[in-house]
Amino acid sequence: MKFSRETCVALDLADPMAAFRTRFTLPADTLYLDGNSLGAMPANVPQRVMQAMTQEWAQGLIRSWNDAGWYPAPLRIGAKIAKLIGADADEVAVADSTSVNLFKVLVAACRMQQGKRGVILAERGNFPTDVYIASSAAEMTGRELRSVEPDEVLAALDDTVAVVSLTHVNYKTGQRYDMRAVTERAHAVGALVVWDLAHSAGAMPLGLNTCEVDFAVGCGYKYLNGGPGAPSFVFVARRHLPQVQQPLTGWLGHAEPFAFTHEFMPHAGIERMLAGTPPMLAMIALEAALEAFDGVDMQVLRDKSVALGNLFIDLFDQELAGMGCVLRSPRNADERGSQVSLGHAEGYAIMQALIARNIIGDFRAPDILRFGFTPLYLRYIDVWDTIAALKDIIASRAWDTPEFKAKKSVT
Amino acid sequence: MKFSRETCVALDLADPMAAFRTRFTLPADTLYLDGNSLGAMPANVPQRVMQAMTQEWAQGLIRSWNDAGWYPAPLRIGAKIAKLIGADADEVAVADSTSVNLFKVLVAACRMQQGKRGVILAERGNFPTDVYIASSAAEMTGRELRSVEPDEVLAALDDTVAVVSLTHVNYKTGQRYDMRAVTERAHAVGALVVWDLAHSAGAMPLGLNTCEVDFAVGCGYKYLNGGPGAPSFVFVARRHLPQVQQPLTGWLGHAEPFAFTHEFMPHAGIERMLAGTPPMLAMIALEAALEAFDGVDMQVLRDKSVALGNLFIDLFDQELAGMGCVLRSPRNADERGSQVSLGHAEGYAIMQALIARNIIGDFRAPDILRFGFTPLYLRYIDVWDTIAALKDIIASRAWDTPEFKAKKSVT
Repeated sequence: MKFSRETCVALDLADPMAAFRTRFTLPADTLYLDGNSLGAMPANVPQRVMQAMTQEWAQGLIRSWNDAGWYPAPLRIGAKIAKLIGADADEVAVADSTSVNLFKVLVAACRMQQGKRGVILAERGNFPTDVYIASSAAEMTGRELRSVEPDEVLAALDDTVAVVSLTHVNYKTGQRYDMRAVTERAHAVGALVVWDLAHSAGAMPLGLNTCEVDFAVGCGYKYLNGGPGAPSFVFVARRHLPQVQQPLTGWLGHAEPFAFTHEFMPHAGIERMLAGTPPMLAMIALEAALEAFDGVDMQVLRDKSVALGNLFIDLFDQELAGMGCVLRSPRNADERGSQVSLGHAEGYAIMQALIARNIIGDFRAPDILRFGFTPLYLRYIDVWDTIAALKDIIASRAWDTPEFKAKKSVT
Repeated sequence: MKFSRETCVALDLADPMAAFRTRFTLPADTLYLDGNSLGAMPANVPQRVMQAMTQEWAQGLIRSWNDAGWYPAPLRIGAKIAKLIGADADEVAVADSTSVNLFKVLVAACRMQQGKRGVILAERGNFPTDVYIASSAAEMTGRELRSVEPDEVLAALDDTVAVVSLTHVNYKTGQRYDMRAVTERAHAVGALVVWDLAHSAGAMPLGLNTCEVDFAVGCGYKYLNGGPGAPSFVFVARRHLPQVQQPLTGWLGHAEPFAFTHEFMPHAGIERMLAGTPPMLAMIALEAALEAFDGVDMQVLRDKSVALGNLFIDLFDQELAGMGCVLRSPRNADERGSQVSLGHAEGYAIMQALIARNIIGDFRAPDILRFGFTPLYLRYIDVWDTIAALKDIIASRAWDTPEFKAKKSVT
């Protein structure tokens, strides 16, 4: 079939998720396809954070750690995220950054293997922080970091592997692992699995416990819309908790933080994954943001995510053929997260030209244009308008200006 | 001399720092002597954070990492803190929690000693998170953690010590180390020094560079008033930066974070102490809060801090003699930070009774009543009124109720 803008208008009219868009504050005249980098702001966040500042902090002062529920926030927010990722409420905590949480779980997982196995298995092309942290964790636990191509991971899982550390959805290509198959294979050879859910949580239904995942970490500021640099979450399967000894033994991970004992005794529960005092204003913003998921059926959300991605690829075929763009994401939606990436030799300048028209995706070296689809606030016509703008920019060489070609720091 | 409330009123009238109190939003009818646990809210913070949410996040979206200065924030805020602690602007970064930063610098310092020395020297009675983190850092670098009493530290510094890790001002007693003398002694035996400035930064002038300190970490939410769980800061002396290899190798510590290279290459500067993406709303609150120090002469601030503490002790002698209270802080202000602690067998219940009268200090096990003096917003009459209330509560046994004696979690 041939698509038109009218097709997309009709899809929006029939969209069962259309109403959720009103839960967000979005800039007028801007199309935002970068929720995979920084989610848009849920409209309820400012008032909640304002209350936290002017009432809880300014008036309640230190009393608010008890009276305003600050102290239990890492587990309370963790329980809300647990619902979105197929975990139980007492298996998830919110704390620190994804990098820091990854270090905690990798070291803890290596320690559980008691030195029997020499390898942390990772993937080439993973988000760099994952590789850097895995390298440090390997060095500090006397392991070797072995990096293989994503399609070699299953074959590389053997009885030398202590821990395999993967990102569920690749940040560049949107390629998605089969979480169940990889986890099963890892367990079959005696390895533990750590999944980074940075590009998965909030974008699709996840079944950490049905897949028998061991550890996971994830990001608060992408599809969870928690705000810039929002705290991260960490999951530990309940069966592992008694054995988990993570290295960042801050006071909030202690069995009795306010006993102020000299010896560290880890908390029996997921609290043991906490370290220092959490940044409460950022925590509260994330907690408020998660209300955008109230009443959302994650399968319906995934269906729309797939439909948006498929539409983008169909329009790529229909409108951008022969214009120097290549598809860098899987055509098969089952192998894809909630983004579609294109490659183009002038990708950087093209993205700058697109952003100058208030259509926001992002660029990843060397040549990738990334487009993320957040089903809570993205429309089918947004996909149409993005492709139409891309087509015009490439056809007219609107990207070919010194301004758009000048590299600046990008995020 | 005998003090009266009128004496204190006169002291306030003559106080050169009196005007700074208007920079804070303080609850009416409350005396707040717990700024050493959570600083009061600077009045400019809510508007600044609101702007960050409704303009920078909601409207600017991902562009704000560049356009709103989010990306340089860890160093920009670090430079502001550097001025308060006697460091250079390019030696301080803001990131993560104090616990996490302490882990970074302890491991980095141990690595600089190249395994030649077997001991991390710490103090008994330090804030627990410091001890727990030092224990983990020792384990992961093959060191022994040796803990001694504070008055044994100088004697324990010998050529087996790789790193000595101390908190400048003790959280329970307010006892303050001689930073210069300890640092000199440590260097004389070839050890490196890590100072935790949790109870110092923002409360007194500090001279990290004049004392030739190697490493320091500190807290954003106590005397810096950055908000609950505000991000921490980390200092590395410039001369050490090229050798520093901290273990939390997140992407923002990379020489080129957006090159997305597979191998970790630390940034040449203090940026190498960064790990993951910082919680920007909490960062911005801290940055705004630091404006409360604009135009503040840190020596004048210290003079007032000493005067408030001395007044508290004088009034303790004058009003509380024979009531079961003991002084747990040094009488000599040169040995003291910006707090005074009292011991009392019923300290917990007494503090609850005091808080019920809207006079807020805090309690630390087993029997310590802590009173912190933040010169930016505390008045001499507040000290008088606190002592008067303490006297009344103890004399009348107002603390002796089931409500006040029932333990709850405290912070």
